[in-house]
Amino acid sequence: MRIHVHDPRIGLPRRLTPEIWAACFAGEDPCWAGLEVTFGETNEALAAMLPDVETLVCTQPPPRPFHAAPRLRRIFCTFSGMDALMPLDWLPPGVTLLNNSGVHGAKAGEYAIMSMLMLANNVPAYAADQGRQLWQRRPGGMLRGRRLTVIGLGALGGGAAKWAKQFGMHVTGVRMRPGPHPDCDRVCATGRLEEVLPESEFLLLACPLNDGTRNILNRTRIGLLPLGGYLINIGRGDLLDQEGLCDALDSGGLGGAVLDVFAQEPVGPGHRIWTTPNLLMTPHVSCDDAGSYLAQCLEVLKTNLIALAAGQALPNQVDPRLGY
Amino acid sequence: MRIHVHDPRIGLPRRLTPEIWAACFAGEDPCWAGLEVTFGETNEALAAMLPDVETLVCTQPPPRPFHAAPRLRRIFCTFSGMDALMPLDWLPPGVTLLNNSGVHGAKAGEYAIMSMLMLANNVPAYAADQGRQLWQRRPGGMLRGRRLTVIGLGALGGGAAKWAKQFGMHVTGVRMRPGPHPDCDRVCATGRLEEVLPESEFLLLACPLNDGTRNILNRTRIGLLPLGGYLINIGRGDLLDQEGLCDALDSGGLGGAVLDVFAQEPVGPGHRIWTTPNLLMTPHVSCDDAGSYLAQCLEVLKTNLIALAAGQALPNQVDPRLGY
Repeated sequence: MRIHVHDPRIGLPRRLTPEIWAACFAGEDPCWAGLEVTFGETNEALAAMLPDVETLVCTQPPPRPFHAAPRLRRIFCTFSGMDALMPLDWLPPGVTLLNNSGVHGAKAGEYAIMSMLMLANNVPAYAADQGRQLWQRRPGGMLRGRRLTVIGLGALGGGAAKWAKQFGMHVTGVRMRPGPHPDCDRVCATGRLEEVLPESEFLLLACPLNDGTRNILNRTRIGLLPLGGYLINIGRGDLLDQEGLCDALDSGGLGGAVLDVFAQEPVGPGHRIWTTPNLLMTPHVSCDDAGSYLAQCLEVLKTNLIALAAGQALPNQVDPRLGY
Repeated sequence: MRIHVHDPRIGLPRRLTPEIWAACFAGEDPCWAGLEVTFGETNEALAAMLPDVETLVCTQPPPRPFHAAPRLRRIFCTFSGMDALMPLDWLPPGVTLLNNSGVHGAKAGEYAIMSMLMLANNVPAYAADQGRQLWQRRPGGMLRGRRLTVIGLGALGGGAAKWAKQFGMHVTGVRMRPGPHPDCDRVCATGRLEEVLPESEFLLLACPLNDGTRNILNRTRIGLLPLGGYLINIGRGDLLDQEGLCDALDSGGLGGAVLDVFAQEPVGPGHRIWTTPNLLMTPHVSCDDAGSYLAQCLEVLKTNLIALAAGQALPNQVDPRLGY
């Protein structure tokens, strides 16, 4: 199988190098005995390989549309949010799109529980106090017995629910298809969101962005959260009304927020979100474990190649209607 | 038994009110059937009660020395660090000093694991970036497999070790009297600290301040920590060389620090520690769960009154030599 790795080196300073590839595909296995792999950083390098490539591995959304790729059968992305690729009308017939779903769960879970602990301990306010050289004690608390609602119970939301349960929280999951979840006290359908919001002391957005979830936390729904409630967003910025959130924090209606994703990234200087009170920002890094991320991605690819060789369904195939 | 509650209302806005007392000592029990309790905020109110008081409850270090308290048999403090009361030469003969040791463990454990997660995720640096409106991604990581050393394995250190183990860390405890600990992979005597420091990716100071621990993390020992290592202090500011720590953070020798306690509190405006890079500060709040703190303290007092009635040793009696 001819594989091309398209790695334009944007963002975090990590590269999917031949060394990382070799370490992952070490050893003899009939599933990857015949792989011929090339590596490139530019669209020109990619274009030169397109006549022969059968599997394309992308660390960033690939240039579209695809022309002159007659042998292409699958595109594997080393990321999981497909919103930048939607709609998939550019995907040539007979080409399967795969994402790295599952890689982010453990890291996302740690980020989410960190964020809940930071909010319970007033860290966003203390960080701002430190900038002003202000010593001011603010009553903090523990997580035990408090209520978390998680929107989205995939890898991210599931990773968060696992830790929340261990810290003794009451966990409500909200998802399209409700059903029991081992780390949730209850799971509700998305249609019941407005019932659940008034009792959500902590609300975590951890779902993919698609037509059904865009602006799912609109201004009206922000207003349904309890006084002093906390918000965490590790999904996508467009899941919520960012201006409505800033207003709720400015007025004191909400007690705090930790945001890793934003409507526009990077957030430019001068944007009000930088200085909104009780809000702590990180630059879209919540779900990436720098040390192991790419190796984990290749493990996902390997799992899918093994399934392919066995003639089974590919576990990471993206559903074009759902976008995940 | 005549009890006086001396609550001068300093610091966090919480009071040990008659209501909190009544809720804790509700119900019939021979151990507290005969309690007569008074409440006061001033030294004058305290002085007026001294001729009769048998048990003094203090939310702050009491005024010393004690004169004219012929019936006084015990002083119960709703705090655990006795360093501000040492040496105990002011304690009248026959008076037992009790602290609230144990109350802080659960909250301290949450603060400690929060701090480790914040350091692994570069939160101190991101908080400073936010103040400068700077979007800059920095590779972060997970806790799994990383090495934590905890100095002090009392309530605070034990609470931290419990969570660190659950997050898959390798935990080394350092204490005066080594012996197995359920949440430590190994426990070393204090004398072996210098062997342990070079492999301590995370170092947590969680011991009491006394003659044996003052400046335990001196400048030389800070220099033994691994390049990029992380420090957390929830014990007392004087456990470490604060200037040495700031120098190590300025030079990049250490990767970050989260400090809740300081050599002088409050930290005054203009002190270099406010602006030291990769350092996040909170104002001595790590171990207090605002909602339950005083009720928990009274539960500790109750346990000691029950032991007293049964003629047993009081579990929270402070050893004048050790200071805890």
